[in-house]
Amino acid sequence: MEEQIDSVGKAFVDHYYHLFDNDRPAMSSLYQPTSMLTFEGQKLQGVEDIITKLTQLPFDQCRHMISTVDSQPTSVTGGIVVFVSGSLQLPGENHPLQFSQ
Amino acid sequence: MEEQIDSVGKAFVDHYYHLFDNDRPAMSSLYQPTSMLTFEGQKLQGVEDIITKLTQLPFDQCRHMISTVDSQPTSVTGGIVVFVSGSLQLPGENHPLQFSQ
Repeated sequence: MEEQIDSVGKAFVDHYYHLFDNDRPAMSSLYQPTSMLTFEGQKLQGVEDIITKLTQLPFDQCRHMISTVDSQPTSVTGGIVVFVSGSLQLPGENHPLQFSQ
Repeated sequence: MEEQIDSVGKAFVDHYYHLFDNDRPAMSSLYQPTSMLTFEGQKLQGVEDIITKLTQLPFDQCRHMISTVDSQPTSVTGGIVVFVSGSLQLPGENHPLQFSQ
C-alpha cells in the first residue's frame, strides 16, 4: 500500500511538471472546480483562475528538476497528499530557483 | 472564512515551532494515532514514532524562523492544510538551514 502511494504520487508529480514545462494550458485537466492553489501567498480557486495564473507567469519556458517527492495517504479515502521540492530553471537565468509545492 | 483559516493556520504554526524549539516532547499533544510524518523521506505514523523521531534529531537546541505560512481548507470539514517555509538555526552553525513542511 505504501509503495502504491509512493508510486502514484511520483507518477502524478512527473505528469504535473511535464505539463507545466511543456503544455501549461493542458494542466486544466489536473484541477477541479473545488481545487485550490496558493501561489506565493495568492489564493486561487477553480480551474479557470488557477490556469490563468499558471499560464500568465512571467516566463514562457521553464524546466522543473525534482529533488524529493514525499507522498502520504489523506483521511479522504483514496486521497494522496504529495510534497515536492526541487529547482526551477528559467531561460536566461544562471542559477535555478528552489521551489517546493 | 479565508481570514479565519489564515489566522488558525498561523497560530498553529507559531505553536508548533514554539514547542519544537522549546519543549519537543510536548509536541505529542499535536499528533494523533493516525497522524503521519514523512521526515526527509522516512515515513512515521502515530504519536510515539513521530515524537521519538523528533526528540532524537541530532541536535538539542534549534530555532525556527518562519518565512511563509500558506493555509487552505481541506475537503474534510474543518480541516486546514498548512504549508510552511523558513529557516532553521542550529547551534554552532554559521548558516541557517532552509526548510519547508
